[in-house]
Parts: sequence; structure tokens; C-alpha cells
Amino acid sequence: MPITLYELVAQQDRRLSPFCWRTRMALKHKGLDAKIEAVGYSEKEKLAFSGQDRVPILVDGKTTVTDSWRIACYLEDTYPDRPSLFGGAAGRGQALFINRWADANLNPSVIRLIVREMLDMVLPADRDYFIKSREARFGMPLDQLHATRDQHRDALEKALLPIRQVLAEQPYICGPAPAYGDYIIFGSLQWPRVMAATELLKKDDPVHAWREKMLDLFGGYARAHPARAAA
Amino acid sequence: MPITLYELVAQQDRRLSPFCWRTRMALKHKGLDAKIEAVGYSEKEKLAFSGQDRVPILVDGKTTVTDSWRIACYLEDTYPDRPSLFGGAAGRGQALFINRWADANLNPSVIRLIVREMLDMVLPADRDYFIKSREARFGMPLDQLHATRDQHRDALEKALLPIRQVLAEQPYICGPAPAYGDYIIFGSLQWPRVMAATELLKKDDPVHAWREKMLDLFGGYARAHPARAAA
Repeated sequence: MPITLYELVAQQDRRLSPFCWRTRMALKHKGLDAKIEAVGYSEKEKLAFSGQDRVPILVDGKTTVTDSWRIACYLEDTYPDRPSLFGGAAGRGQALFINRWADANLNPSVIRLIVREMLDMVLPADRDYFIKSREARFGMPLDQLHATRDQHRDALEKALLPIRQVLAEQPYICGPAPAYGDYIIFGSLQWPRVMAATELLKKDDPVHAWREKMLDLFGGYARAHPARAAA
Repeated sequence: MPITLYELVAQQDRRLSPFCWRTRMALKHKGLDAKIEAVGYSEKEKLAFSGQDRVPILVDGKTTVTDSWRIACYLEDTYPDRPSLFGGAAGRGQALFINRWADANLNPSVIRLIVREMLDMVLPADRDYFIKSREARFGMPLDQLHATRDQHRDALEKALLPIRQVLAEQPYICGPAPAYGDYIIFGSLQWPRVMAATELLKKDDPVHAWREKMLDLFGGYARAHPARAAA
């Protein structure tokens, strides 16, 4: 039975979720094919079978796994003979740190910069939900948040700093070759690439060069999803 | 020929450097004994042999290694048959991320909270240097920084958040057993333990419980260095 991945979709078939990108890249790393079920924000009834309403959801035979971190651990433990996502126990432990750090620091700094631009790309049916839920989260109209976006640029720079320093010393976050720590951070930067009208990374930024390498992995798997901003 | 570690010392023989604690714990992890040479801030002439003026410095036979990260890599590569600090290439790569993150986020939030209290503990000969260099770094008198310390508490909480989340899911930063990722963060929290008049961690904080376990490692090696704050 094939693996199925449920993930979020926007206009023009754009795949926006940073968490789903973690899972997509993990599946490719393991050499596993998956059928992808695209779901809009307003189609949560399609996810009810999982007992919760968030993506990614992985269905592998009779097993349903939710949460990108738990999915990564499931894939690692269920397919141990395929290339390792973590490279051992210390690699897995430290990948969890990068995961929690990205969720708490990197993603919040990205979303404040792009949420207004995302609005123009979500499915028409999702627009009202998106506005209402995000304005509640940020406590202000999205246009107002966008008008002050330069204030949030510093937070992104601060979050990117350790990534940039690491990439000055080694080719990937995980050292000589990409692994799950790379996919975590890649998800956070593929998301604005496909959804934001303005490119967040400067072309001379080592983080940009690393993202280019990530886009080339698995035969250009992630690059096949076009950037929204003009090149 | 024994290994020698040069490290920073304060009053009452307190060993304060977060970077030197990384190296101390790494040496213990590898089961390597080292002679420790204590150096005050004002005794940089003792370090001139290394071609720079910062600690830690490791001297192993004819080899001199500076910088705590390079020392960790040196120990891992020179003593591969002893317990691994990184658990493989992905573990090493991700440990570098934790290292750069701690330097850029955790340590700056700790020092703003404790620098005025540290002043009362540095060696008398170091006092003027410490005041001058730290006031230049922070752009204000240390008493003024201390008066606004509550403002910096939020930055520490933000830095501790991913650590706390990881420790809610696994015993150590590196998973089931401590490794170099743990020693990096331990250094950042052993430093205020031995130097600050006020304990930074609440007793019911999982980070506090983890630090207790770290203090117990290697026969209570780090616990033998007493906390400054009353228990």
C-alpha cells in the first residue's frame, strides 16, 4: 500500500507548509514514494480521520502519524535500512533542538514578514479564515503588520545568524551531507520562496547558496515548485 | 605528556568561562585527564604562546589548539576510540549549530543578567579591565545595566524555550545520553551558577533538573564547583 501525505495547498498548486516540506524532503531522503493529498485551510473535514486538524499527516498502510517531528521519527524507525535522517541518537536528539528552535524563533520571524503577501496566494475559499485567524494571532490587521515589516527584519536576521555561521564552516547544517536538520530549516525558507512576493534572502547570502543546493537535491525535487518572487 | 587546559579563574578559585566548561566536560567525556592552568583576565601574557589571547587553550604534547569548538573537534578526531562527543557526522554538524546559537543567543542573554554580579567575583587585579571592557560592550555603566535587568529576563526565557521543550521530550539535549550539545548549553548555565548572586533557573524548571543531572556526571565533577547563590 503506498504512503499518503496530507499537506496544505494554496493557489497555483503552491505547497506552502514549512512542516510539510520537512516531511516531503524526509520521504525523498528515505527514497520513499508518497501519494500527496492537497488540502486547503477550509477543508479540515478531510483530516478528521486523524483525530486532529493539522498537517502534515502521514498514512503508511494501517498507520496514521501526525506532527512532522513524529513523522520523521516514524520514518527513521520504520525504515532503518534506508539512508538515516539523523545519523544516530545524538543526531536525532540535536535535530529535535533545531526543530523546536525553528518553530519558536525562525518561523515566527518569517511569518511576520510574509503573512500579508501570503494572503494573496491562499485559496479563495480560505481567504476569510486566513485573515481572521492571523489577525487574531498578531493582534492587528495584516496590512498594519505589513506596514511595519521592516521592524521584523531584525528578528529574521538574528534567527539566520547561527545558520549563516554554520554554513560558513560546513556545506550543510548536518555537516558534509544534508539530513533532517537541513530539512527542518529548508522548510522555513522554501515556504517564503513559494508564497512571498518579495525574496527574503539576498543572493550573496550563504543561506541563499545553501537553499539553492537544497533545491537541487533529489533531481531538483523542491525547485520544481516555482518561486513566487521574480528572479 | 599530559594534556594542559588553560582557563579563566575568578575569586575563590571559581571557574567562570562557559567556553572552558565545554572543554572541561568534553575532556571528562573522553576520559582524558588534564592539568588545568588558571589564568586571570589580566594575565594574558601567559597565553601569548598560543598566538592569541582567549581561553580555552588546549596543549596536547606538541599540539596547541584554541577555540572551544576546534578543541572539541580535535579531541574527537585525535581520540576516536574513546566515547564520541558527537555521535557521527550529522551529530557534529548539528552540534556546531547549537554552538553558534548558544554564542549568539543564549550567552548574550545570560551575561546581561549577571555581569554586574560577576564584577564582585572577578579577581581584584581584573576589576578595572572587567568594568572598562564590559561597559564598552554594553554602552552603559554596569550598575545601569543591572537596574534594567528585568528587561533582559525575557530574552533569557526566549532562549531557554527550545531547550525546555527538548528536555520535556528526552533526558538530554543529545537524546538518551549526554554529549557535546549538552556540554555547550551546560557551560552557559554553569557560568551563572558559579558567578551570579541570584540563581537564574527556578527549581521547578526542567532546565534546572537537567543541569542537576549534568552536575552529577563524572562523579559530580562540575558540582564540586559550588554555586554562588544560596541554595
